Amino acid sequence: MNKNELFLKALKGEVLERPPVWMMRQAGRYLPDFMRLKKKYDFFTRCQTPELATEITLMPIDQIGVDAAILFSDILVVLQAMNIPVEMREGVGPFLPTPIRTSVDLDQVIVPDIEESLGYVLDAVKMTQAELNGSVPLIGFGGSPWTLLCYAVQGQGSKTFDIAKEFCFKEEVLAHQLLQKITDTSIAYLRAKVAAGADAIQLFDSWGGLLSPEDYQKFSWPYLQQIVDALKDITPVIVFGKGCWFALPEMAKSGASALGVDWTCSARNARYLSGGQITLQGNYDPARLFSPIFQIKKDVKQMIDAFGKDRYIVNLGHGILPNIPVDHAKAFVDAVKEY
Amino acid sequence: MNKNELFLKALKGEVLERPPVWMMRQAGRYLPDFMRLKKKYDFFTRCQTPELATEITLMPIDQIGVDAAILFSDILVVLQAMNIPVEMREGVGPFLPTPIRTSVDLDQVIVPDIEESLGYVLDAVKMTQAELNGSVPLIGFGGSPWTLLCYAVQGQGSKTFDIAKEFCFKEEVLAHQLLQKITDTSIAYLRAKVAAGADAIQLFDSWGGLLSPEDYQKFSWPYLQQIVDALKDITPVIVFGKGCWFALPEMAKSGASALGVDWTCSARNARYLSGGQITLQGNYDPARLFSPIFQIKKDVKQMIDAFGKDRYIVNLGHGILPNIPVDHAKAFVDAVKEY
Repeated sequence: MNKNELFLKALKGEVLERPPVWMMRQAGRYLPDFMRLKKKYDFFTRCQTPELATEITLMPIDQIGVDAAILFSDILVVLQAMNIPVEMREGVGPFLPTPIRTSVDLDQVIVPDIEESLGYVLDAVKMTQAELNGSVPLIGFGGSPWTLLCYAVQGQGSKTFDIAKEFCFKEEVLAHQLLQKITDTSIAYLRAKVAAGADAIQLFDSWGGLLSPEDYQKFSWPYLQQIVDALKDITPVIVFGKGCWFALPEMAKSGASALGVDWTCSARNARYLSGGQITLQGNYDPARLFSPIFQIKKDVKQMIDAFGKDRYIVNLGHGILPNIPVDHAKAFVDAVKEY
Repeated sequence: MNKNELFLKALKGEVLERPPVWMMRQAGRYLPDFMRLKKKYDFFTRCQTPELATEITLMPIDQIGVDAAILFSDILVVLQAMNIPVEMREGVGPFLPTPIRTSVDLDQVIVPDIEESLGYVLDAVKMTQAELNGSVPLIGFGGSPWTLLCYAVQGQGSKTFDIAKEFCFKEEVLAHQLLQKITDTSIAYLRAKVAAGADAIQLFDSWGGLLSPEDYQKFSWPYLQQIVDALKDITPVIVFGKGCWFALPEMAKSGASALGVDWTCSARNARYLSGGQITLQGNYDPARLFSPIFQIKKDVKQMIDAFGKDRYIVNLGHGILPNIPVDHAKAFVDAVKEY
């Protein structure tokens, strides 16, 4: 189907000449073309307008030469669809004016009709696939229920998400009700994304690493597992938990096709913890793209040697940073192709 | 010397009836008495006035009943002494108006005379020891050179400390020069603290977990090791690296008396990674103190069972949060005493 099958083959664990490469937030602020659109349209306009989301999604394919596209969107659109308003404030980031903290708040949260509330994402998937025309596969994504709860309860970004955790630890029943509503919505949403044409799904548990291993098993993992269960027979699933090295053993048994790892977990630890069989994705420190190009190229070669060229997808350990020079991002991708 | 020797005995690995307990930031914003002083005196006035630092340090000894005192101060006073001004801005946190980013900036950074620049800390140590009068031991502390570099270069707190990392990765020689100046100052400072009467030293590597294991070995660990080497024969040293589970094997061989662990690293993983012999300290999720008291008591018992009662110091996995009810903090300490 796709001319470049490296990414999908790596997800199947096939032996390849070189690993595929893409970067989290590869359609992001380090790209001058992205910044041009950012000046003209606000964040959610870019998400909600399929033409803009498509244009942004395609940027790094031509300009950087990655082996997979990832639909430009945001994990928080799911909360918006659930009747939890989300604004994007310059210099603040996501801001939720009506955070969920009581049972009355929770009653307002709906499990929405996906076509009606998130049809624009599905349109963007279709439009992007038409434009990609089989050049590279398209990844759709969603946030983990725990990470979405963090925003829904805290009301904005936070170093500790203390209010969200206080809610979970004091109002455990309500927390699980909210997590289940988010899970049900996410399953319907991600299945619709696959039906619209996404070739794989990545689940982002950006704040899973704020939980102890025990609380992770209570508040995050069971809901991720539900989503993996609901998707694994229709599409390959990648689970990426930032700071969740401790959960790699469970994740490896989940039915996911690949696991993302961040740069604090060495290739060796990641292979050991995940049992050595599952495809891994990662894990270059995004800030390491500030290094001189010769260093980036050396590091990438060393990283592939450490993970092994098979059952491996080259990526960063988190999203690319806004101030990375474009030629450094390209050097990262080129180094993989030169392997 | 001290009436309560539990903490110092645990650092020596002696067999005890129960482990000692204290909490990072135990003299902090969750205490009403602390908030009263906070309204009257700004942050660095509290640090720089030995009477105030002493009063604050003593608060949790009487009110919460911990087994060790930790001198009220801040890791950033070292940067101030090095001619890098630090302000504390309400709602922002530390703010450094003249961050270190070039060789010209670096030339302004001095290795100061400790008596002259940080004599107020030494006075606070002496005054606190006189007031404690042998009731419990007094811990002095310092930041790791890497963590101090993060602030010195970034100029303020940050989720990623991207500017600090960019500096290290692009200006490696300058970075090492700055790290060495901070190390030299820290050694002199911490030795003076011990001479003034501190019974043990804890080193905080709050941002070590932002580095890959390889970069940790480059930019953080060698400097921490220098400090441990310079202190270990005159005082017990505790090394606490937030998010630094991957470095526990090296840390265990460093000559430190104990290692702090955060709540993402289970007791089992921590014992395994640190080789099973060294005293460990931690690791209750600070946000878990929001739980109902019966849950806190149950968790503490389970935590001691998991770490084992010997070679173990009960603590949180990071600083106590400002909104924790005092009786929850006390329940945490009581649960250890009831063990």
